[in-house]
Amino acid sequence: MTIIPIILSGGAGTRLWPLSWGDHPKQFLSLISDKTMIQETLLRLKGLDIAAPIVSCGVDHRFLVAQQLGELGVNPTILLEPMAKNTAPAIAAACCAAMKQDMDAVVVVLPSDHVIKDVEVFQKSVMTAVGFAEKGNLVTFGIVPTFPATGYGYVKGGEHVAHHVYSLDMFVEKPCLEKAQEYLASGEYSWNSGMFVFKAANFIEELKVHNPEMAKLSIEAFEKAAVDADFIRLDKDTFGQIKGDSIDYAVMEKTTKGMIVKLNAGWDDVGSWSALYDISNKDGNMNVVKGDVIALDTTSSYIRGGKRTIATIGLDNIVVVDSDDSLLIAAKGKIQDVKKIAEIIKSREL
Amino acid sequence: MTIIPIILSGGAGTRLWPLSWGDHPKQFLSLISDKTMIQETLLRLKGLDIAAPIVSCGVDHRFLVAQQLGELGVNPTILLEPMAKNTAPAIAAACCAAMKQDMDAVVVVLPSDHVIKDVEVFQKSVMTAVGFAEKGNLVTFGIVPTFPATGYGYVKGGEHVAHHVYSLDMFVEKPCLEKAQEYLASGEYSWNSGMFVFKAANFIEELKVHNPEMAKLSIEAFEKAAVDADFIRLDKDTFGQIKGDSIDYAVMEKTTKGMIVKLNAGWDDVGSWSALYDISNKDGNMNVVKGDVIALDTTSSYIRGGKRTIATIGLDNIVVVDSDDSLLIAAKGKIQDVKKIAEIIKSREL
Repeated sequence: MTIIPIILSGGAGTRLWPLSWGDHPKQFLSLISDKTMIQETLLRLKGLDIAAPIVSCGVDHRFLVAQQLGELGVNPTILLEPMAKNTAPAIAAACCAAMKQDMDAVVVVLPSDHVIKDVEVFQKSVMTAVGFAEKGNLVTFGIVPTFPATGYGYVKGGEHVAHHVYSLDMFVEKPCLEKAQEYLASGEYSWNSGMFVFKAANFIEELKVHNPEMAKLSIEAFEKAAVDADFIRLDKDTFGQIKGDSIDYAVMEKTTKGMIVKLNAGWDDVGSWSALYDISNKDGNMNVVKGDVIALDTTSSYIRGGKRTIATIGLDNIVVVDSDDSLLIAAKGKIQDVKKIAEIIKSREL
Repeated sequence: MTIIPIILSGGAGTRLWPLSWGDHPKQFLSLISDKTMIQETLLRLKGLDIAAPIVSCGVDHRFLVAQQLGELGVNPTILLEPMAKNTAPAIAAACCAAMKQDMDAVVVVLPSDHVIKDVEVFQKSVMTAVGFAEKGNLVTFGIVPTFPATGYGYVKGGEHVAHHVYSLDMFVEKPCLEKAQEYLASGEYSWNSGMFVFKAANFIEELKVHNPEMAKLSIEAFEKAAVDADFIRLDKDTFGQIKGDSIDYAVMEKTTKGMIVKLNAGWDDVGSWSALYDISNKDGNMNVVKGDVIALDTTSSYIRGGKRTIATIGLDNIVVVDSDDSLLIAAKGKIQDVKKIAEIIKSREL
């Protein structure tokens, strides 16, 4: 049995604007360490007995993927999504690629833009999940919540199966604060991480049961794929016919084989500059500072310089991110509105 | 009798860092209008029956002066100060140049980096001052204070001579707030503007009386000056021997011929970004915005873009100034500390 990572790199979020942007989304940025997020995603698996990864990404990002994984000496299979169809079709096609290597392959599906601080705990959880996947389960990692987050979906655990392992009771949408507090207090809920472990063949089977049209088209898009240099281009006409959907909706909420492995390893999806602030090391003034920054009377702020000198005076709880062509300055508590900025800029470019 | 403006352009302040800097001080910047401060200084005299100006500046700024005044079609006499010796020696040398044109010339000494909103009132005051200067007085403009400023020196009026005109009682250093409040309440004090009107010959006479060494060396530096293309280079060896001093200390505080013309014309010395904010037109959110700026939930802030897009979210009372190589972000109330930033950067470059 081969363990194959499936790295999902199709995202193009704007919540880390101005650094994360259509052409250069956050998985390709060095946000925490000197390695990029997608590099960290693979390095986090180092030491496990696994095969080379399958990476699914958009056409525009293929060279970034090849270069950044090449720098690690990794030789991935790179599947190109002709257009964004959400996670389920990309995972289905990647499962087909995995099954070509080994019909019994267990795949570890990982978004490419998460942070996990405690690698040892993570790897143990992965191997626990692999064990349950081998028995035919579709495993999702539930992040043990540390606060009543309203920005994440939740998964509810059912029967206690083993240490940190529960049957999957149900998925829950992003809650209001009151609900989130209930979830946190109950101990039964964990954050929906978007990370999964299952046999590739089992996923395809379950997709056939719960979304046969998507299964058919995803498989066909893979079978008709064109091999173009180092890249496997999923067939555009076929893939284009798929009604896109997330793995949660398309399979995980419907399968009876779901399982939760609870993960308590310092996970974060780095969904905003303030999240990045929270998980970064702070200086004596509780600032996170990158680049050439002179900070006077400045506290609890995230200041990320680009090529220029940044001087700050008398700031508190402010985010500053400088890039070559844009500059963001925001109150940390209102940082979610960066999406509005990105929309305004996008609308200008049309 | 000829009226000749003497424009003082020797300053190199850092209070408007990062735009104002050694090589490019604020008089050469377009801070309020599309004209630079030194251009505005001359344009403010338009309509008066005056001769071409004499401009005194540092060697490094000679081409900026020539270019910016050339753009106005003005052909100034440009005196180059070999080194900074404060205002008195520069004014003395400029008076020598004025006397070469007309022994009876009345000079109007103007810093090149002030803002005066009400040009009509200003011009009337200038002509009032010229009248008293012709009678042998050394006139200083006293700015009618609008708040108890602690950042300016004051002049105290004595005998009421004519409408808005008083004998000069004394100069007062920058006061504490309590003193400033007293000055404001008394009605006898006005801000020391650094603008003067007198006969060039009278100034030289008074300088000979109160500071004979400076008078001798300033005159000699002018007489030994080298004419270099469009520039008159004051003799370096002679000028270098002068013990530099301000016109206030060297002459105005000591002369018995002093006179104050009170000026109430929307004057500001634009001594800081917050001063610039105060005198600029605001939008509906009380922001002053220049350049490509997207301001969400942002109020009472001064945001000056450079070449890039600036996005702000949730800021209040913040100053943002972007330049090619540096970026300033400061609480408006702490903007005076920009001097510290400039010092830090200067110390790095040594």
